[in-house]
Amino acid sequence: MDSDDLLANYQRAYGTRVGFGTKPALILIDFCQAYFEPGNVLHADVEDALASALRVRAAARAAGVPVILTNVVYHPQALDGGRFYEKAAPLKNFLKGSPMGAFATGLEPFEDELVVSKQYPSAFFGTSLASTLTAMGRDSVILTGLTTSGCVRATCVDAMSHGFRTAVVAEACGDRHAAPHEANLFDMNAKYADVVSEAEVVAFLKGLG
Amino acid sequence: MDSDDLLANYQRAYGTRVGFGTKPALILIDFCQAYFEPGNVLHADVEDALASALRVRAAARAAGVPVILTNVVYHPQALDGGRFYEKAAPLKNFLKGSPMGAFATGLEPFEDELVVSKQYPSAFFGTSLASTLTAMGRDSVILTGLTTSGCVRATCVDAMSHGFRTAVVAEACGDRHAAPHEANLFDMNAKYADVVSEAEVVAFLKGLG
Amino acid sequence: MDSDDLLANYQRAYGTRVGFGTKPALILIDFCQAYFEPGNVLHADVEDALASALRVRAAARAAGVPVILTNVVYHPQALDGGRFYEKAAPLKNFLKGSPMGAFATGLEPFEDELVVSKQYPSAFFGTSLASTLTAMGRDSVILTGLTTSGCVRATCVDAMSHGFRTAVVAEACGDRHAAPHEANLFDMNAKYADVVSEAEVVAFLKGLG
Amino acid sequence: MDSDDLLANYQRAYGTRVGFGTKPALILIDFCQAYFEPGNVLHADVEDALASALRVRAAARAAGVPVILTNVVYHPQALDGGRFYEKAAPLKNFLKGSPMGAFATGLEPFEDELVVSKQYPSAFFGTSLASTLTAMGRDSVILTGLTTSGCVRATCVDAMSHGFRTAVVAEACGDRHAAPHEANLFDMNAKYADVVSEAEVVAFLKGLG
Repeated sequence: MDSDDLLANYQRAYGTRVGFGTKPALILIDFCQAYFEPGNVLHADVEDALASALRVRAAARAAGVPVILTNVVYHPQALDGGRFYEKAAPLKNFLKGSPMGAFATGLEPFEDELVVSKQYPSAFFGTSLASTLTAMGRDSVILTGLTTSGCVRATCVDAMSHGFRTAVVAEACGDRHAAPHEANLFDMNAKYADVVSEAEVVAFLKGLG
Repeated sequence: MDSDDLLANYQRAYGTRVGFGTKPALILIDFCQAYFEPGNVLHADVEDALASALRVRAAARAAGVPVILTNVVYHPQALDGGRFYEKAAPLKNFLKGSPMGAFATGLEPFEDELVVSKQYPSAFFGTSLASTLTAMGRDSVILTGLTTSGCVRATCVDAMSHGFRTAVVAEACGDRHAAPHEANLFDMNAKYADVVSEAEVVAFLKGLG
Repeated sequence: MDSDDLLANYQRAYGTRVGFGTKPALILIDFCQAYFEPGNVLHADVEDALASALRVRAAARAAGVPVILTNVVYHPQALDGGRFYEKAAPLKNFLKGSPMGAFATGLEPFEDELVVSKQYPSAFFGTSLASTLTAMGRDSVILTGLTTSGCVRATCVDAMSHGFRTAVVAEACGDRHAAPHEANLFDMNAKYADVVSEAEVVAFLKGLG
Repeated sequence: MDSDDLLANYQRAYGTRVGFGTKPALILIDFCQAYFEPGNVLHADVEDALASALRVRAAARAAGVPVILTNVVYHPQALDGGRFYEKAAPLKNFLKGSPMGAFATGLEPFEDELVVSKQYPSAFFGTSLASTLTAMGRDSVILTGLTTSGCVRATCVDAMSHGFRTAVVAEACGDRHAAPHEANLFDMNAKYADVVSEAEVVAFLKGLG
């Protein structure tokens, strides 16, 4: 593998901007209590990401853009946990009924917002999200949520693969450590999605409204 | 996000070893000519990864473990390129008929090996690979290929999500730069798969034979 | 199209028996109150099918075979109803909170049974059911439920496509009219699954226990 | 199950017309040589269906509507045949290289038409067709092909499930016997799609052009 400068290396091949589509949906991924709970194994310093996502949500709602929230929910005995539950011990926070799986304070879904419950990293895997977006006539998605290196990355790859132009809002995503956060924004921006700022996406949404 | 030591941070939450299954399949992801062609935008210094993957393949074949190869193939006008082709310019190497999409020298598939042609990063997305593995009675997959931060990562997330125990062979994967290679091995090992050495997987395969 | 005898026509091409697998799961599809409610647009005379399915379930439980139940659940505003909700008016029975979507009397799930909630005909579409079955090491499914021409047929095609040997229990499936019931058993038996009797499947399950 | 008149029974619940979308794609399913070859186990009297589909294709092309053809292709040793190949003996016609798998005379794909090769009944299962349609901005599909009770039915259920308004052209679909042809048109029209005439779809396509 090359040892030249990383950015220079990638600029030779990647980095096309695809732009926002014209009929987006906003997705808020896994903003659950466990990430905000002091002492929880999943605790991360991601209050700023949630605050950013809430501002993006307000702009989306004002523009009439559909808002979809995801969470993770397993059967109380984890019968539907599969290989993910076997590998990733912190997922026990998301057994049905656990308060750690509730949406974080400030993120209660509105009645016109869809909640997609999932068992795997991608919001598209094992859910009807792609069908919903297609039936709604959406051509693109705007992603926010937790964690950048986990469920946001997996959802990004699948959103693009399913045929939706994909934007990831940098400040509205968070992780337990800066290194995987940055590394995954880099990968996503290179090959799958446009990584954009909160300001850029809010301006875009205002233009739609 | 935390700024403590990355390994210490993750050891608090992740890192369970799931082990090899008992009925694996070996997958060689996208070892295509473009990555080995001097001057090609996809050229990467990944001869060592191919050599390692070929040694793992020999061990798999000796043990009677099914071997599956993937490549990327698009309609000559990229009608099936979707959002991936739109974003990632180097994919033009894989238009049907391009010599850059051929398997690298030394990797000609045997008659009893399946080639899965795909259009997206994951070998499972938009293909019948999961069905094939399930119908074959496989409970696990061993992943090798190119690139670690691209199609290997995406295939790993999907393999695990589809219900297969997943191992990624570190030396048998390669990328255009060491930083994304290492960052993605780290992510995969934490949450989705066991990252193993060539020596470990070859010893396991010999034990099966 | 030919006008010869239908059975003779098909016997020239189809009808291979694939047999039960060795590690089955039993699936009870959509035994919801709406089908049993006098006056409901979905009411069907399917008490016998439920009684048969309950006998098969008892045999499965005695043999340690996993039992999975499905239901249909939509967002209260049908945001996830897609094209199915648009086409099939009776689906309004399955808006979240409707008593018509509850499991029929006698079918309360046990704590060790998984409930898979779906939005589309197939129990596999937009759900993680295939992943669950693969992770559980299942090689086959036994299908019962409502309706033969709707969700049972769709689930059968997908079960087979996902790699599971599929059996459909004739008496444990029901429909609103005998003609589609019989026509769909015929199609499934020809190309996708073995249509078996309750007696045959119960004997098989007893042999496993 | 009820024994009243079938049509009256269904009219109480089903039969909503969803209409054509505004951005359709035309799909021609499995018009392969085997169905037209005298003496082949798959031979069916379906020349009229092909002729109808070719007229619909001409109207689609004139209107600039994308045309997609499907075929069935298996690895020479059927390694990717899964449970379908195990159950349905006539699928041996579609081993790679078999002349029986070639497109029927008159249906050579144009260079701007996509061919989707599949291993299972549905054109969506194990293929990237849904992604292609979504990325192309399609909101609906028009289905033609062989056989009504097999791959057309399975494709119809999946097209609707993936979020596309679905129309099935009655005269442009064919089967080996009239009974399953009619029974499956009935089921599809009730719950999943609008079954339309060739005249109706051609008029619609002319209106788009």
